[in-house]
Amino acid sequence: MPQIAYLGPPGTFTEQATRLLTEDFDADLVPYETVPLALAAVRAGEVLAAGVPVENSVEGSVPATLDALTTAEPLVAVQEAVLPVQFDLLARPGVALSEIGTVASHPHALAQVRSWLSENMPGARTRATSSTAAAAAEVAAGEFDAAISASVALDHYPSLVRLVGGIADVPDAVTRFLLVRRPGVLPEPTGADRTSLCAVISDEVGSLVEMLAELALRGINLSRIESRPIKDRFGEYRFFLDFDGHVADARIGDALTALRRRCSSVRFLGSYPKADRSPASVRPSASEQAFQTSANWLEDLRAGRLA
Amino acid sequence: MPQIAYLGPPGTFTEQATRLLTEDFDADLVPYETVPLALAAVRAGEVLAAGVPVENSVEGSVPATLDALTTAEPLVAVQEAVLPVQFDLLARPGVALSEIGTVASHPHALAQVRSWLSENMPGARTRATSSTAAAAAEVAAGEFDAAISASVALDHYPSLVRLVGGIADVPDAVTRFLLVRRPGVLPEPTGADRTSLCAVISDEVGSLVEMLAELALRGINLSRIESRPIKDRFGEYRFFLDFDGHVADARIGDALTALRRRCSSVRFLGSYPKADRSPASVRPSASEQAFQTSANWLEDLRAGRLA
Repeated sequence: MPQIAYLGPPGTFTEQATRLLTEDFDADLVPYETVPLALAAVRAGEVLAAGVPVENSVEGSVPATLDALTTAEPLVAVQEAVLPVQFDLLARPGVALSEIGTVASHPHALAQVRSWLSENMPGARTRATSSTAAAAAEVAAGEFDAAISASVALDHYPSLVRLVGGIADVPDAVTRFLLVRRPGVLPEPTGADRTSLCAVISDEVGSLVEMLAELALRGINLSRIESRPIKDRFGEYRFFLDFDGHVADARIGDALTALRRRCSSVRFLGSYPKADRSPASVRPSASEQAFQTSANWLEDLRAGRLA
Repeated sequence: MPQIAYLGPPGTFTEQATRLLTEDFDADLVPYETVPLALAAVRAGEVLAAGVPVENSVEGSVPATLDALTTAEPLVAVQEAVLPVQFDLLARPGVALSEIGTVASHPHALAQVRSWLSENMPGARTRATSSTAAAAAEVAAGEFDAAISASVALDHYPSLVRLVGGIADVPDAVTRFLLVRRPGVLPEPTGADRTSLCAVISDEVGSLVEMLAELALRGINLSRIESRPIKDRFGEYRFFLDFDGHVADARIGDALTALRRRCSSVRFLGSYPKADRSPASVRPSASEQAFQTSANWLEDLRAGRLA
């Protein structure tokens, strides 16, 4: 059974997401203490892949993930999962809401349920733990009265019960995770794919516009952009881009070669099915057939076959 | 003395940054539990301004800051501070490194000193606290042996000493903070300013390129871009932009009116001196004089003064 790393400990949102990311095959999930350690295990071949947070995470520091993906040997994403940020209030059986004196969780999770706590448990004191799962563990051990955790925590601490579910202050927040592994055969295109990459360009007026125009001119829909400074390379800037389409698609391939010519470096971070399975809309001038027809036409021109 | 809110508790990196942000005047710093609560205090007029993290923070969740800045009534940034992420190991006097059994801090701070800890204190166990300052408080109270904290924590816990300084695994990481207040008279242009805004555009291929081209065509250097989804407005996307220049500058004003025409909404988040004081480079065609000359020329044309 393949081993899959994730940002631990067991019972966190990343475990929940990694289960979703590996639901199509039997996998043995192995927790790692940090994202860089999980990715190092993939690079070293100790595990097949790793489940890591990439956007708006509760426990994982997302800049850490982006930086860890782009330093050391390349890795590629092969699957995406999007989880609603749903917190449960866990306690030992028979404990009533009014009896809870202490509530534990990761500081970021506590911040995201603060309104709910002050409305529903105004007397309870909050306690910080290193993760939402560690909070459940301490409640099971009798250290605190209640934990704010992911629902998957109940699988690891069966002595606890869900006292209240869905207590996040902002009910529609989501967290995005990727399953990443060493480069190899890519996932098949599905028509509803996303491609991620990190591009480094010179810090000049207009260089970002020119790079993004390469995507826009080919009808490629950008779904996310984030700039991150490069500390050791003065005068350059790093951009993380996500856009609709698969590297096997003609328009994506054509755009990638243009970025490769234009940027100081381009790191391909994977083409994988989008979690929401919404198909890419492709304008007629950027279709596979349009690229094929125009390539044939150019070939004819160059061969003197002006028919 | 004006009261200034910050993301507390006292002794954190945000307090350290807020001191820097208010060094030019006497201020009474007031800690708040979360960024939204600190900004609500500014909006309600309970405090004059608030110091909040906006990029790569240790304790503050930065997406929370961006979202809190753009919901509810407008606020503007008037000052910027950039702090190196520098951690100190604090302990009670007379305790040797080899005697330390437990080290406490915020989970993100613990993750950022992990290599240092495993090399220098392999036997110490880590403990999570709600902030780096809370760790210092618990060490002062005798709960744990050592804390990973900001150096400002020593001011609040004078019974502690700095055992080791500068122990971050990545020595050159920085965190960026802004001082924000209710709209009013803007800071004077200094020639080394930054402007921040949040623009909402329709989720169509090319709409981002067109928006950024409005900046590039006027020689405006973008220093940061980040997209954030809008959950309740389907088909639109929100971008946080930082660029060189002051809204009082002709080229920035011209670009802002173009964005206002083009975007569904533009929220101005302030023009303020850059922390590094590096002057904006302005190409001749985007200078104040060039804008003035071209405006005069057009006025002449329209008045029939074709001289």
